[in-house]
Amino acid sequence: MDKLKLGVIGAGRVGQIHIENIFTIPTIELVGIADANIAMIQEKYPTVKCYKTADELLAVEDIAAVCIFTSTDTHEELCLKAARAGKHIFCEKPLSMSLDEVKNIQILKEIKAQRVQIQIGFNRRFDTQFSEIKAKAIEQLPENLQVVKITSRDPDLLPHALIKRIGGLIFDFTMHDFDMARFIMGKNIQEVFVKGDTLIDPTLREIDDIDTLIAVLTFEDGSFGIIDNSRKAVYGYDQRLELFGSFGMFKAENISDSMVEAYSELDMTRKNPYPNFAQRYRQAYHAELVEFADSLIEGREVPVSGIDAIMAQRVAIAAEESLKTGKPIKINTEVPLI
Amino acid sequence: MDKLKLGVIGAGRVGQIHIENIFTIPTIELVGIADANIAMIQEKYPTVKCYKTADELLAVEDIAAVCIFTSTDTHEELCLKAARAGKHIFCEKPLSMSLDEVKNIQILKEIKAQRVQIQIGFNRRFDTQFSEIKAKAIEQLPENLQVVKITSRDPDLLPHALIKRIGGLIFDFTMHDFDMARFIMGKNIQEVFVKGDTLIDPTLREIDDIDTLIAVLTFEDGSFGIIDNSRKAVYGYDQRLELFGSFGMFKAENISDSMVEAYSELDMTRKNPYPNFAQRYRQAYHAELVEFADSLIEGREVPVSGIDAIMAQRVAIAAEESLKTGKPIKINTEVPLI
Amino acid sequence: MDKLKLGVIGAGRVGQIHIENIFTIPTIELVGIADANIAMIQEKYPTVKCYKTADELLAVEDIAAVCIFTSTDTHEELCLKAARAGKHIFCEKPLSMSLDEVKNIQILKEIKAQRVQIQIGFNRRFDTQFSEIKAKAIEQLPENLQVVKITSRDPDLLPHALIKRIGGLIFDFTMHDFDMARFIMGKNIQEVFVKGDTLIDPTLREIDDIDTLIAVLTFEDGSFGIIDNSRKAVYGYDQRLELFGSFGMFKAENISDSMVEAYSELDMTRKNPYPNFAQRYRQAYHAELVEFADSLIEGREVPVSGIDAIMAQRVAIAAEESLKTGKPIKINTEVPLI
Amino acid sequence: MDKLKLGVIGAGRVGQIHIENIFTIPTIELVGIADANIAMIQEKYPTVKCYKTADELLAVEDIAAVCIFTSTDTHEELCLKAARAGKHIFCEKPLSMSLDEVKNIQILKEIKAQRVQIQIGFNRRFDTQFSEIKAKAIEQLPENLQVVKITSRDPDLLPHALIKRIGGLIFDFTMHDFDMARFIMGKNIQEVFVKGDTLIDPTLREIDDIDTLIAVLTFEDGSFGIIDNSRKAVYGYDQRLELFGSFGMFKAENISDSMVEAYSELDMTRKNPYPNFAQRYRQAYHAELVEFADSLIEGREVPVSGIDAIMAQRVAIAAEESLKTGKPIKINTEVPLI
Repeated sequence: MDKLKLGVIGAGRVGQIHIENIFTIPTIELVGIADANIAMIQEKYPTVKCYKTADELLAVEDIAAVCIFTSTDTHEELCLKAARAGKHIFCEKPLSMSLDEVKNIQILKEIKAQRVQIQIGFNRRFDTQFSEIKAKAIEQLPENLQVVKITSRDPDLLPHALIKRIGGLIFDFTMHDFDMARFIMGKNIQEVFVKGDTLIDPTLREIDDIDTLIAVLTFEDGSFGIIDNSRKAVYGYDQRLELFGSFGMFKAENISDSMVEAYSELDMTRKNPYPNFAQRYRQAYHAELVEFADSLIEGREVPVSGIDAIMAQRVAIAAEESLKTGKPIKINTEVPLI
Repeated sequence: MDKLKLGVIGAGRVGQIHIENIFTIPTIELVGIADANIAMIQEKYPTVKCYKTADELLAVEDIAAVCIFTSTDTHEELCLKAARAGKHIFCEKPLSMSLDEVKNIQILKEIKAQRVQIQIGFNRRFDTQFSEIKAKAIEQLPENLQVVKITSRDPDLLPHALIKRIGGLIFDFTMHDFDMARFIMGKNIQEVFVKGDTLIDPTLREIDDIDTLIAVLTFEDGSFGIIDNSRKAVYGYDQRLELFGSFGMFKAENISDSMVEAYSELDMTRKNPYPNFAQRYRQAYHAELVEFADSLIEGREVPVSGIDAIMAQRVAIAAEESLKTGKPIKINTEVPLI
Repeated sequence: MDKLKLGVIGAGRVGQIHIENIFTIPTIELVGIADANIAMIQEKYPTVKCYKTADELLAVEDIAAVCIFTSTDTHEELCLKAARAGKHIFCEKPLSMSLDEVKNIQILKEIKAQRVQIQIGFNRRFDTQFSEIKAKAIEQLPENLQVVKITSRDPDLLPHALIKRIGGLIFDFTMHDFDMARFIMGKNIQEVFVKGDTLIDPTLREIDDIDTLIAVLTFEDGSFGIIDNSRKAVYGYDQRLELFGSFGMFKAENISDSMVEAYSELDMTRKNPYPNFAQRYRQAYHAELVEFADSLIEGREVPVSGIDAIMAQRVAIAAEESLKTGKPIKINTEVPLI
Repeated sequence: MDKLKLGVIGAGRVGQIHIENIFTIPTIELVGIADANIAMIQEKYPTVKCYKTADELLAVEDIAAVCIFTSTDTHEELCLKAARAGKHIFCEKPLSMSLDEVKNIQILKEIKAQRVQIQIGFNRRFDTQFSEIKAKAIEQLPENLQVVKITSRDPDLLPHALIKRIGGLIFDFTMHDFDMARFIMGKNIQEVFVKGDTLIDPTLREIDDIDTLIAVLTFEDGSFGIIDNSRKAVYGYDQRLELFGSFGMFKAENISDSMVEAYSELDMTRKNPYPNFAQRYRQAYHAELVEFADSLIEGREVPVSGIDAIMAQRVAIAAEESLKTGKPIKINTEVPLI
């Protein structure tokens, strides 16, 4: 296989970012796109074959793998269908809206049974800075990693309607940080304590969501993690990480496409961090698909597994409980067998 | 009063730092020093009158104010004696080892009754960067301040013997951060949740202490604070602060006496942060005494009150309980009347 | 025209960088590549039609524009051939090895006569940071721009054989800085003074070249420029720019793909700047071709003209003379009519 | 000698900065101040004995050393008088207004004959960052030091009247940079080329001065220096230095008393560099006097000699000539014997 023949299901907010990236990846050939709004995609991507339904696209024999960029509530069904059609799967996190881990494990088992692979879209793992810290962390003994700190703030509130479809702060947003914390530390999370509130938009309570969150993680060996989230950082998309231990500290600050310093009579100004996830993680979104394609072309295992999705989801479920009960909640650290 | 005539009680680790500073403050005249090790201080400070006991020094009529730099377990008694001798007091935090707030309030009442003032040595409030953030915070409405984050790490473990005299991590070290969090936010803390462990030196358990701590604070209006502490940051004394809210973010990173960048074939290197509290807070230690002297000379109120000590201590006591019970603990936010 | 149908002439060191970029630009269709080493390009780019000579490629009617990435000594002839074949031209700087400006102007006149356009590969103009400074400079009155400073250092010495083909330090390297200085200031250069020497490799004298250079520019309105060059910065490709004036200062420091700070017992280390021009200016190389394609597709003027090449070359010729005579040399600031 | 008994001559702009520092140096006892405006100094420094003339102060036997902080045109005479009175001398640069080096050498010979020492106020040598770079430079072989770059910009224009008394840009300001370039490189300067103009205040031409200057230095071994000066950087006192060579680069950027970053909806802002020489070099002004006192108390040679003043002045004289003739000017690199 020279190029990965790929189909895309879902060309909405996130899907379009991925599609633009896919056009620039020489190892991927975009064979087809499926979206209910077929008129829109036909106009937008005139060189690609378009389909109204996922089923039509999955029936295309030439397609070796599909990307599932539809809303979370459809992930489960589409993963199963894709697997049964013999397509490898790249699926945006989370794997499903289901809190029922058993169901998620069954999806993974079905995927395995069909001898295809699934990669979960934990794109941040592919960020240049975070993966550099991961590489440095691997050089340390696990017990030397004492505290991981993640700051993750969105630039603005989401519409309530969207939240209902993709999940609230913990499932849509903090989920990434739970995965990142576990990824960087190389250890499973055994307890989570969460404080959260609506400090920005009190109407979020109506849909049982929050906009500000602090989480304290305890890893299985007693080391710690801290996450702080906000839905509205007016200065942009704030994504930072710090790893502390007996070796010292590794620290990734925010980045931007320009560090130009402008000194005036008043003060020095510099551009804010990247304004949103599309710009901030453009490189990471690109890299995760390059890696997906390369893994499949070379017959290797894809880099982020369904297990990773399950382990992050367990923490998210416990986090919800902690938020509601006001108490730290224990988490099962045993990795499920698929 | 042109210059503040000052006596110093205690010329140990911290006392000597202060004494060096006092020599450089034109508005203070150092009249006498009392320390049990009178031979040492006589040799070290030949131009100053030396005393073996605090009582002798407190008997000197010419002295208008005293600094109490002795170990924490003596603060209580010395404050009372100084007040009764009619001396204004600058006392290193905490006010006492006593967990009994009633006792502390009585000390403050006695001080008030003697018509002298007491300033508590929360030196970090005088740090240039943190006080700049405080000034910026004051320009905001209180509800705009959503999250304060403090990283505070010591460069190395303390001897167990010293810990026994000055208190464990929470009372000796995190205490500063509780005060700083309350100072920056301008709000009282109503809940604290603490996780802590001995990730560096397991023998600390023998003296019921920890070396690593994460604390989540909830302020009286629902806003949040996060503190992370470690006893051993091999790269120096790590002191950072970040204030987040609807306005954006104010962020104070570590500083050093040189930011020289050295680029070599391998990488770029820069000096580590200041190595210890004496160097890091030299300016703050200096400024708090300048302000103490200026306040007394000009007949103003001193800047950090005994109430501030009590409010921080309440959080420390709750933090100890949270650490032991594994649960978040509520704190009385009512400011005591003196 | 939906996509620009492009041919590439020359797939050597620089050509391959461009070709990799071209593959990722959705508005360009790479129709053919010509290189004497046809076996190499056939293997490397199996999906593209390959030609052994420029003539064969220029004969392909479907091609609307060509990129000339061959060595400098062939630019002149290929530009003329391409123009006569009715192809728009993207040509790597400099336009020719010829010191004879009259000849260069004739090339430009022929290009104009053939109703095609030529864009010169002054890629640095498209760098995000430098173009941000250019945009800020445009907001100022010209007389407010007082001093432009450029530091431009290569990571390592070039082989003598290559230098003979592409020109010495001034023609191959400082040429970019002359263009950048003029671009940022929006003013022509009327005097140059150069000091230079072989502080790194004395054998460069054998081929009449230098490895270290300082240039002082005086612009037509009396404002100044400073350039400092070295052929060997062991820490990477050093590319910085600073613009000073009555408004204050705009400053672009080096960048890298990671700003991760690693604090250890010894010091803080960070990655060096990008190691070479390919990585440092990947974005700029990409952007200049995107802009070339967009200009032609939309029927606009291309962004960097042949005049720009001539104006930079004049400074380079004067710089050579200054280096040899030890005196400042005047430069004709009158823009030639084509 | 426990403390250096010091007299100060001249309590103007710079003198007062020094006097404030002297009060904070435990190894110096300020015995007397002489200033024509005796009423002013008596009110300002009530605890110090004041004199109307230098002669009166020089007659005080108890004084071991004097600081000459008067305007440049008086340095020569006061140095001679002080030497003859047997006092060690700390003299602000330059040593004299005289372009006649022979005269300066005679002053130094007289000082030597009287067995006293003279230290020149090249305060910037004592700046923490620059002295760190000096220390790093010393670890290199001299031939490894290839280019030193100094940016030195004043925050605002000086009154014409003051310029007449202290000298124009080259003698008052660039002089520091000539000394710094020679100090960092540890090599003498053998050629200087200067371009300068009045880009800010054209009326400076009336007093034969400029406000903007670029200087290219060639050191005795062929290595280079670049200096760029401006009289008006609206963002503060801009003082930067960079040393480049075969080892890589050492770089000192501007500093400030706060690096707090404020992120808002618009951008990130940070405080400007220190606003003026008094704040920027407070530490250096302090350190040079501490070192002066310590050297005399311990019977060592003082750190900045009269030779250093002469070597810098030679470059300044040549720089004036280069500015006027438009040509590079050679400089005698032979160190005079005193």
